[in-house]
Amino acid sequence: MTVSHKPLNQRSARELAQGIAAGAFTAEQATEACLARIEAREGAIKAWAHLDPQAALSRARALDSGPPRGPLHGVPVGIKDIFDTFDAPTEMGSPIYAGNRPFADSYAVAALRAAGAVILGKTVTAEFAGMHPGPTANPHDPSRTPGGSSSGSAAAVADFMVPVALGTQTGGSVLRPASFCGVVGFKPQFAAISRAGLKLAAETLDTVGVLARDVEDAALIYDVLTGQVPAAPAERATPPAIAFCRTVLWERAEPETIRALEEAREKLGAAGAAVDEIDMPGDFLAVDRERNIVNAVERARTMAHEWHHHRDAISDTLAETLTEGLATPHEAYLAALETCREARARLPGLFGAKDALLVPCVPGAAPRGLGFTGDPAFQGFWTALHVPTITLPTHRTDDGLPVGIQLVGRPREDAGLLAVARWTLARLKGSDP
Amino acid sequence: MTVSHKPLNQRSARELAQGIAAGAFTAEQATEACLARIEAREGAIKAWAHLDPQAALSRARALDSGPPRGPLHGVPVGIKDIFDTFDAPTEMGSPIYAGNRPFADSYAVAALRAAGAVILGKTVTAEFAGMHPGPTANPHDPSRTPGGSSSGSAAAVADFMVPVALGTQTGGSVLRPASFCGVVGFKPQFAAISRAGLKLAAETLDTVGVLARDVEDAALIYDVLTGQVPAAPAERATPPAIAFCRTVLWERAEPETIRALEEAREKLGAAGAAVDEIDMPGDFLAVDRERNIVNAVERARTMAHEWHHHRDAISDTLAETLTEGLATPHEAYLAALETCREARARLPGLFGAKDALLVPCVPGAAPRGLGFTGDPAFQGFWTALHVPTITLPTHRTDDGLPVGIQLVGRPREDAGLLAVARWTLARLKGSDP
Repeated sequence: MTVSHKPLNQRSARELAQGIAAGAFTAEQATEACLARIEAREGAIKAWAHLDPQAALSRARALDSGPPRGPLHGVPVGIKDIFDTFDAPTEMGSPIYAGNRPFADSYAVAALRAAGAVILGKTVTAEFAGMHPGPTANPHDPSRTPGGSSSGSAAAVADFMVPVALGTQTGGSVLRPASFCGVVGFKPQFAAISRAGLKLAAETLDTVGVLARDVEDAALIYDVLTGQVPAAPAERATPPAIAFCRTVLWERAEPETIRALEEAREKLGAAGAAVDEIDMPGDFLAVDRERNIVNAVERARTMAHEWHHHRDAISDTLAETLTEGLATPHEAYLAALETCREARARLPGLFGAKDALLVPCVPGAAPRGLGFTGDPAFQGFWTALHVPTITLPTHRTDDGLPVGIQLVGRPREDAGLLAVARWTLARLKGSDP
Repeated sequence: MTVSHKPLNQRSARELAQGIAAGAFTAEQATEACLARIEAREGAIKAWAHLDPQAALSRARALDSGPPRGPLHGVPVGIKDIFDTFDAPTEMGSPIYAGNRPFADSYAVAALRAAGAVILGKTVTAEFAGMHPGPTANPHDPSRTPGGSSSGSAAAVADFMVPVALGTQTGGSVLRPASFCGVVGFKPQFAAISRAGLKLAAETLDTVGVLARDVEDAALIYDVLTGQVPAAPAERATPPAIAFCRTVLWERAEPETIRALEEAREKLGAAGAAVDEIDMPGDFLAVDRERNIVNAVERARTMAHEWHHHRDAISDTLAETLTEGLATPHEAYLAALETCREARARLPGLFGAKDALLVPCVPGAAPRGLGFTGDPAFQGFWTALHVPTITLPTHRTDDGLPVGIQLVGRPREDAGLLAVARWTLARLKGSDP
């Protein structure tokens, strides 16, 4: 094993697990390093909704004094504050849930714990994983949004407070903050990771995802959460076949996103990938519109209790969505679901023999201000199509702000997308448009 | 309005709502009538996990003194004890959850409340909506199982304790108890009713369903829970086209089920329905096997917290399923999901132009004893196929035990199935094999 001199809080989940297993350092030391970073930076970043350092250290010490628990033994992780945790509040980014203490862990938290992870704390979520932001700032420029709704998870991973964190995506809530914060954001195929114990936002869209600083860590967490023995994403024997696709939403792309994609396309081609350009048929445009209908109607259902009992404590932004959902005729909702289903059925034709699509992730770098988490359209589109997607921190603006690209995997081929992403990130690391 | 002299507890939800709206009686009187029936019979039937008569009466009085709330104004309903309720314990049929008080109502409960329903109490569920039974007895013969897992909901509706109740189906947990107890059990297409706030059992199978004494009441609750303005199922202008299908599991059918189906087929044909017989291709048989794999793996995930923290309080029956799920390789789970998906894609070919399939619901009448809730295979098969299904209380054995038939609707055609069911039940009511 090579000796690393990187501070523990900057190491990957794999490096931490390996170091603890080898006796190079303890889970307690890894946890202390993350807590020290948080202590130094949390005043500026505000990534955490709940943190109990003594409890986390005590869990780490218990792991240090016990037998190996699993592939994440001693690794600190952050949990978006819409996943139930039995030993910490779960507040959903809403005053309605202040002090809420669930009875049991959500599936994802229980699985991480069973694999030996130290649940470091709960990260800030936009209100009910929607568009009304919490206080988190972007680590690359605290005057800018970190994106949302997995705001705290993205900021904490980007700021080296924790190597990996859980997020969820209903529109663009994993990939957008990852892109804005300069980390990897992976959303597997729809519902690949059990949603038990998660506060649902929109049932046919919600997907559990992972924020990490490299593809291998995202794959590690994904493997644990899908009950697999973790294995690094396969090294591709041959370069992938990638289709560059401007999508039907290209007019929303700003110069830095256009430059990032053009440059990625060129470099990947030069590295041996077959990069063709494909057009997306215009009828896919309906998915963008219909996803908003599905989102509004399903959110109105998952929020029925809060709507009837705590309406005054719901933000205006969310109340507007819920009102729209409640006013939508059932037939329009069914038609919207059908549009999404039909578009999914056309995906094999769009992909052809390609391994992945290279598409925009965000319009551009993180917008100024903390009041708006950014446009989710480039991500929501694919979320509604249920395909796996990943953003890679490949590019920066001249001002040093991250701009991620997005790779879209073939339907249900999560592992295939991770392999393409690993290949791609290795070729583009450190790119500047 | 015709004046009914039926005791209030024997009336349908529609009759109660209409009577309360017309001022013929109050919500309090309707609630009192249901509570009096429970008082008289609960010692023998044990349908209720939690009941607070004073709280229910107080809610009914509040409705009586307020404006009309909706289509269920003043109607008492029963709720399977795996739906979260903010004002009553939710115990999942497990000692692990003794005294558990959720923060918020589940979607279905919130929606019923918003429509004016009186949530009468929580009905007994088999442990975590699985196979380990609670104490409920069959109202037609207390020495026999009521079926499960929605045991209390089926028994309470059958015994005139409440006109309608909520259930859930992962294998056969709505239709089996309905068939054994002689009531209507309706499982819409997969996830038609939002599952927010429900303790998930198996995420790609769980579906919220309704137990009622007629098809119109099932349709009423379905409409409320899917955000529609309630309307009686369309009167069919023409008799339906029905395919009699023995399915690939026919060898499990006992004489009373065979007689019920043969007789139903004959009578429906005599009433003008086009009743053809179709064979189910043998490759559908894989669905029965693969559903068990999906069920085991997904239950192991939704039960991750309980497995790690309360293993000793899990029944042997459930522990066996969870152990099987934990031991199943990820590839086998993915293959099982794929088998179910492929079978779903073949359904249009199976249905052809038929409006519904007539198939067995249960092997036979409710088995003796309260230790086993019966074989779910005839229902679990269709649950895995995500189609809407309904059982109708059309037949009885010579001993007077109910034996329901099952109608299977075309993919996603919930309303179409309800219309066929209404037509069918009207023609078969009172049949005896």
